[in-house]
Amino acid sequence: MPECITSRENGKIKYACRLAASAGARRAEGAFLAEGYKLCRDLAQHCPPRMLFYTEAALQKHPQLAGMPCPQYLVAEHVAQKLADTQAGQGVFAVLEMPRPPAGLLRPGGRYLALERVQDPGNLGALLRSAAAFGYTAALLSPGCADPFAPKTLRAGMGAAGVIPALPTEDLPAALAALAAQGVACLAAALQGSRPLDELAGPWPGGLCIVIGSEGQGLSQKAIAACTASVRIPMAGGIESLNAGVAGGVLLWHFRAGGQQAARG
Amino acid sequence: MPECITSRENGKIKYACRLAASAGARRAEGAFLAEGYKLCRDLAQHCPPRMLFYTEAALQKHPQLAGMPCPQYLVAEHVAQKLADTQAGQGVFAVLEMPRPPAGLLRPGGRYLALERVQDPGNLGALLRSAAAFGYTAALLSPGCADPFAPKTLRAGMGAAGVIPALPTEDLPAALAALAAQGVACLAAALQGSRPLDELAGPWPGGLCIVIGSEGQGLSQKAIAACTASVRIPMAGGIESLNAGVAGGVLLWHFRAGGQQAARG
Repeated sequence: MPECITSRENGKIKYACRLAASAGARRAEGAFLAEGYKLCRDLAQHCPPRMLFYTEAALQKHPQLAGMPCPQYLVAEHVAQKLADTQAGQGVFAVLEMPRPPAGLLRPGGRYLALERVQDPGNLGALLRSAAAFGYTAALLSPGCADPFAPKTLRAGMGAAGVIPALPTEDLPAALAALAAQGVACLAAALQGSRPLDELAGPWPGGLCIVIGSEGQGLSQKAIAACTASVRIPMAGGIESLNAGVAGGVLLWHFRAGGQQAARG
Repeated sequence: MPECITSRENGKIKYACRLAASAGARRAEGAFLAEGYKLCRDLAQHCPPRMLFYTEAALQKHPQLAGMPCPQYLVAEHVAQKLADTQAGQGVFAVLEMPRPPAGLLRPGGRYLALERVQDPGNLGALLRSAAAFGYTAALLSPGCADPFAPKTLRAGMGAAGVIPALPTEDLPAALAALAAQGVACLAAALQGSRPLDELAGPWPGGLCIVIGSEGQGLSQKAIAACTASVRIPMAGGIESLNAGVAGGVLLWHFRAGGQQAARG
């Protein structure tokens, strides 16, 4: 039987809570806390688990937990409640190592998603999930984006954080200019001077980077200026905008590797 | 100056709250309550307004409100709080007539979205918004879907409820079979026996209906059986699913009228 933790003041519990609460603690430790059986299981395929916490009820429901290759701790219900980010917690928590992005990720021919000040963790998670699902190489995050390893982002991303490297950049326009100098076409999701996405012809042998801003503010002028072109999703019926996650999903799908159609415009 | 309402027990306020709270009241009255300046303004282009409520602060911010062609009422802040669905209300509310779907909507050559038990009003609103943005003809809703005129759905749909007719159906599989009998291809978003969407070749001269189930449960066997084919969004990297709104948006974009590419499979 694994060691049992019955105190909310236990050092390991406090450590896990710090990882959940603070991006700085996550950076310093190179680790993060995930919650929920499915999410922990999926992330553990890419991020080595360091510690696993579960309630007795959760272990009965998911006996496979006992096989996870890391130290395990049985926690009392009131301890699980302290670890949980949501009311309806599932009683499963893992401390996992942040994946280390491989070198040479930013290269000609890749598919990238660049995000500027996407503050909402739900939107960030949904965008990372779409980019991972459509085979993108990596995501670039400007300062002011939500943290990809915050509990809410992890939940919305459903494991995407383990699949697609999310690289923080100090200066997104400079990073876009560097990509463009390598021959990667950077497409800004912006109305100003834009073309409908189905008029932008592929294929893009040099690679592509889709650049998306926050739902409220859109992209900065600097980011737009660093891009190769601006692109919009054509809309009918007086609808002015789409849900941010939906708009990003449509762009990422449309410009996925191998998915380019000939221009129709 | 418009009449001023200072009591939360005022008959018109109670009427408006009933419309916000009850799908039955909306059906009986053929009217619904919308909240927020932009949403009320956009909806009023398609749904005749019957009554407008606003606070003095809201009128100062949006003096155009005074020009809306219906009876207007100034409401005290505490009355506005009773009408508001969210904490951060904007102090603008309109009772609007439900749009009456034109006859002959379901016809060969149209583009349709059919939803089965999409209970979450946020998901329903996002799906209607995508369908309206991509020029779909109408939406069909099975029993158990959220109400398209509930406050949360209206907010997520951002005016889509005024643009795209949402038709309740008592028996969705039967409605799909009737569409299919008219030559409309019905595509079920389901894994079972499915083909990747970019292998399904257009054009679809007989029209198309995209059929989507709830995020948790997916489509019923009956709905799948009534469809022409099943379609999936191909995914990479071990990602098993997309956010429901994102998946619907990608399908609706891919199969929009005029948007079909040749099969690549």
